[in-house]
Amino acid sequence: MNLILCEPDEIGTDGVVTLTGPRAAHLRDVLQVGPGDRVRLGVVDGAKGQGEVLALEDGRATLRAALEGQPPPVPGIDLLLAVPRPKVLRRLWAQIAALGVGRIFLTNAWRVERHYFDAHVLEPAIYRPLLIEGLQQAGDTRLPRVSIHRQFRILVEDELGPAPDAELRLVAHPGGDGSLLTTAGEAGQRRVLLAIGPEGGWNAFELDLLARHGFVTVGLGPRTLRTDTACVALLAILNEARRADRLSSDGAR
Amino acid sequence: MNLILCEPDEIGTDGVVTLTGPRAAHLRDVLQVGPGDRVRLGVVDGAKGQGEVLALEDGRATLRAALEGQPPPVPGIDLLLAVPRPKVLRRLWAQIAALGVGRIFLTNAWRVERHYFDAHVLEPAIYRPLLIEGLQQAGDTRLPRVSIHRQFRILVEDELGPAPDAELRLVAHPGGDGSLLTTAGEAGQRRVLLAIGPEGGWNAFELDLLARHGFVTVGLGPRTLRTDTACVALLAILNEARRADRLSSDGAR
Repeated sequence: MNLILCEPDEIGTDGVVTLTGPRAAHLRDVLQVGPGDRVRLGVVDGAKGQGEVLALEDGRATLRAALEGQPPPVPGIDLLLAVPRPKVLRRLWAQIAALGVGRIFLTNAWRVERHYFDAHVLEPAIYRPLLIEGLQQAGDTRLPRVSIHRQFRILVEDELGPAPDAELRLVAHPGGDGSLLTTAGEAGQRRVLLAIGPEGGWNAFELDLLARHGFVTVGLGPRTLRTDTACVALLAILNEARRADRLSSDGAR
Repeated sequence: MNLILCEPDEIGTDGVVTLTGPRAAHLRDVLQVGPGDRVRLGVVDGAKGQGEVLALEDGRATLRAALEGQPPPVPGIDLLLAVPRPKVLRRLWAQIAALGVGRIFLTNAWRVERHYFDAHVLEPAIYRPLLIEGLQQAGDTRLPRVSIHRQFRILVEDELGPAPDAELRLVAHPGGDGSLLTTAGEAGQRRVLLAIGPEGGWNAFELDLLARHGFVTVGLGPRTLRTDTACVALLAILNEARRADRLSSDGAR
């Protein structure tokens, strides 16, 4: 936990936050703080700042929040992910949030098994704490917005529709030969919507539908990666390409 | 499994391979092949090619191997990794092998807990099958060479020594501000040795020792990632930077 996140309704009108459970245990056992110490504190989807520890007892921590300024920007990448195996998705939630995405569209696809949609790991009660764990790791407050789509075609045709100019759409597919870095570099600071298929890949219909809605195929060379590895790899590469673009823009000023 | 790997001694002098266990089950249940069908087959640290299924019965598969040409090149990246928590390392082995590394130096560091060294997951009997699982996923045959170092200083001073010209040394550390892509781009096709620290980071002594042995500090921006996420992220970014460099060299010819 590099940032302790609380919910907006955990902050009283007097600015005092009361934490219990894992966050209180973390303050006591890992950070080993006491009254008067300050820790990094943020509000889900809100600002970051500091919390001054007021008391720490009986498994309960109270802090006075000093949160300033604007919330951090929403990450510039959105993810369209064919629902992976529940075990894989469970591992992915925190990693996706740590890497930073704005939206997560979880979708059906030809090679997604139906029973994946019944998994507990698609329930907000399960995935929300995992997303928050990832945010606390990365020091961000912006909770990815999650939506679940049982009909791929309706998602792409009706909900996404034609690609807006301000959005670069990419679909990861083994054998996509172009350099992801070159493609991402051309995006500059436009939003990116990245589609990642199921184990075994998208089928021809799905690839065609994505292409007709502006998705450009990209790959990572000849090595085929597991969904979770590919997901982390692709988000990391896109993030780094965008950061390099910002650094070079800043340097050019 | 995008490639079925066998050990050199599993191939008879007549070129016939007999497989049992998970690989035989994969042929029967996932690939659902029968006599006459061909599958992608490779030898650990050897060539890739095809195997023609001769028979599949009683949980045993026999294939005639047709392996041609040279083994694939050894991946151009080596990894120096502070031993992570056993649970994290268990998840990492296959992912590291899938992304491709030549060597893995597992090392002690100030913030590595001693008992991590007693973990089963540091035993070849445990990690070798996980590495092979990653190679079979990625379609590679090159098994990473693993070594375990209980004394960080001896590893860096005596075993690594001064950086050879043909090697770029990088150390990942939160707050390393430079663009990893720019640094990696400058490496061209030189070998890269990437050092990744424990949760909580390297200490000042370790960073100084690494710097004095040619390691350049790189970071991934303000987000702090868990060791396993960072490991996949950094390897993916370096791989992609090297691939972009090769694509542009090919294009320039």
